[in-house]
Amino acid sequence: MKIYDFKGFANPARVRIAVAEKGLTDQIEFVHVDLPNGAHRTPEFFAKNPSGTVPVLELDDGTTISECTAITVYLDHVQGESTLTGRNGKERAIVHMMQRRAEAELMDALGTYFHHATPGLGAEIELYQNREWGEKNLKRAMAGMHYLNQVLSRQPYLAGESFSMVDITAFAGLGLADFLKIDVPDTLTNLQAWRARVAARPSIAASQA
Amino acid sequence: MKIYDFKGFANPARVRIAVAEKGLTDQIEFVHVDLPNGAHRTPEFFAKNPSGTVPVLELDDGTTISECTAITVYLDHVQGESTLTGRNGKERAIVHMMQRRAEAELMDALGTYFHHATPGLGAEIELYQNREWGEKNLKRAMAGMHYLNQVLSRQPYLAGESFSMVDITAFAGLGLADFLKIDVPDTLTNLQAWRARVAARPSIAASQA
Repeated sequence: MKIYDFKGFANPARVRIAVAEKGLTDQIEFVHVDLPNGAHRTPEFFAKNPSGTVPVLELDDGTTISECTAITVYLDHVQGESTLTGRNGKERAIVHMMQRRAEAELMDALGTYFHHATPGLGAEIELYQNREWGEKNLKRAMAGMHYLNQVLSRQPYLAGESFSMVDITAFAGLGLADFLKIDVPDTLTNLQAWRARVAARPSIAASQA
Repeated sequence: MKIYDFKGFANPARVRIAVAEKGLTDQIEFVHVDLPNGAHRTPEFFAKNPSGTVPVLELDDGTTISECTAITVYLDHVQGESTLTGRNGKERAIVHMMQRRAEAELMDALGTYFHHATPGLGAEIELYQNREWGEKNLKRAMAGMHYLNQVLSRQPYLAGESFSMVDITAFAGLGLADFLKIDVPDTLTNLQAWRARVAARPSIAASQA
């Protein structure tokens, strides 16, 4: 399998952590996509992902799968139990509910702030910006951090008792906050403690190697 | 099980169709939430769904599940094969990839247009509006219709050979377009033919009964 991505960026980081969690590193060839030079806005790349985003998973039969949730679902079913996306209907439902919240309230909100209220990937890539909407989304992301902190006051991980793709999403979201020089408030003690626990997982170091 | 919703609205319609597709109508009690009077902005409702949106599924053990994708995943695992959300890893991945596109490029884009560039649910509910962003999202939704039309030029349903929750999402999205008096272009012949086929499914009539 191949994964087209850009090492160090937030969404690619999510899939790299999932790859490491599932022990699939040896089965993947990573292919660098030069985003700052617009390599994701070419006909060749749009054929792989019409949305023009990374990461994209390409299977050996040529099937391409984009969107982090979808890629993680695939990787989670390659071998062993589906630990990251839920083992049964109820777990899967809760993972997908919390995944949508972690995306909408943190990861995607920060992404919208980045693309709309900062220079983003530069004027040649960011062809439309709405600064007010970007700033609004920064507020949404801060509220999202408070919400996640509250969830973690009653359970160890964001989808319940065990680590899941939701924790990966939120962990990468906080990484994006760091990149954007947005502080995670010290008062969010559950979130800070959870972040330290997740950071200590072997998959985090492996995904950055 | 209970489902808190508002009959006729676009996201509630998605879950009602899923209920009918899975033959679960007799197992669900629907509870009306009076959105125009702000019944989704009360402490009681926020306890069920902190995002303050409908629909919400409440299980007999008191667990509440919100977000249409998550509710549909749950319903799809109650009995029989998981036909709406994929039977195996690859199918599930493709369903979630296309679901995210059907949401972002059509359903959520139209929702953003409704809440930001029209009176939406009224001034007492719509406390922040960004008209330019709303109009931008209408353009995104129109582009989304063209994209879905293109997908349907090579396969009968949006996630491949069989009907899935992605078809439900897009069908309800076009219903929202009707409500907003946005025409689906006649030139999108694949999309129009697919819509007629989906509309003829018994679950559509059953969901509106």
